[in-house]
Amino acid sequence: MRISELSARSGVAIPTIKYYLREGMLHQGVQTSATRAEYGESHLRRLRLIRALLDVGRLSVSSIKKVVAAVDDESLPIHEMLGIAHYALSPGAQPEPGEDWQQARSEVDRLVEDLGWDITPDAPTRDELAQTLVRMRQLGMEVDLAPYVETAGRLVSEVEMDKIPFDGPRDAAVEALVLGTVLYGRVFDALRRMAHESESAARLGS
Amino acid sequence: MRISELSARSGVAIPTIKYYLREGMLHQGVQTSATRAEYGESHLRRLRLIRALLDVGRLSVSSIKKVVAAVDDESLPIHEMLGIAHYALSPGAQPEPGEDWQQARSEVDRLVEDLGWDITPDAPTRDELAQTLVRMRQLGMEVDLAPYVETAGRLVSEVEMDKIPFDGPRDAAVEALVLGTVLYGRVFDALRRMAHESESAARLGS
Repeated sequence: MRISELSARSGVAIPTIKYYLREGMLHQGVQTSATRAEYGESHLRRLRLIRALLDVGRLSVSSIKKVVAAVDDESLPIHEMLGIAHYALSPGAQPEPGEDWQQARSEVDRLVEDLGWDITPDAPTRDELAQTLVRMRQLGMEVDLAPYVETAGRLVSEVEMDKIPFDGPRDAAVEALVLGTVLYGRVFDALRRMAHESESAARLGS
Repeated sequence: MRISELSARSGVAIPTIKYYLREGMLHQGVQTSATRAEYGESHLRRLRLIRALLDVGRLSVSSIKKVVAAVDDESLPIHEMLGIAHYALSPGAQPEPGEDWQQARSEVDRLVEDLGWDITPDAPTRDELAQTLVRMRQLGMEVDLAPYVETAGRLVSEVEMDKIPFDGPRDAAVEALVLGTVLYGRVFDALRRMAHESESAARLGS
């Protein structure tokens, strides 16, 4: 298809498509003349991936570039590729001076160890969780991680992982993993806020 | 305490505190002379609330202003106040032309009805969930909401709601609700991504 059709079918404006091409986030089409290129289903799919990460996942363009580069780099072992994609998904948190941070971070490390979870020591999710714990304690909130650990672990292992085609082509696996992480995260978050609204209405007798 | 101590204890820079005072997000201190004001624990608490919503919740300053204005407006019935706070927490989604959107949005409305959830017809979470469904289907992902509905509903009703002091002062209730929604949301999201990393390591035999 021509770029105009690619734009119409993906809902992405032509100048934006050209930007993705220049930035290497979208692979070049097949040049059919000096001014024309043909695009195919793989281009459409990539644009939909970018768009989902952008407007549903609310990832920055630079994070999406990292994810997409990891998907495209065929020399990376699949586990490393997944690691890069995972880390690009973390909003990140800066360690803070002080004992509160140290304590929260040790608690996270201990939790990971007790659960036997296989997570690299420098995974940004460790700092992210530590930051959240610090803020909750500063606000005097009591924090009980147990139901969240149990629920997140179960959803991921019993539902989400079974949808990842680990035995298929590597780009399909990483794409499914990234999309599952981001999109099911949004699904869960929206449903949780809906349940919050409904439950507070019930308890307040609206 | 003086503004310098308020800054040191909250970790918020003095110019930022002055900005929040000007914007009405932080209540004025007690003026003790033409150039001095005294601040108390309520100021510290408000700053921690703002900071948590900003750097953990990643809400925009304009969303935080709406939340804080709802907390401070004592003429609002508590349920309306919670509604405003809830809606400020939604990243929002624009309805899109086309049948895919209509279908996804009807599906969300039917789900809410089937569950008997008490959610206003114009709640932004409805569009947010519809947008996510549209994107997932465009990418050919099969979507099964059931485990997410079940899990989100149970976490909220059995764990999170019991922490909200509905019988105490109204600002304590709304603060707890907003913080619970945002901070436990981040806790869950970080844990879910950790579980993803660990499970994919296990399945790929890293």
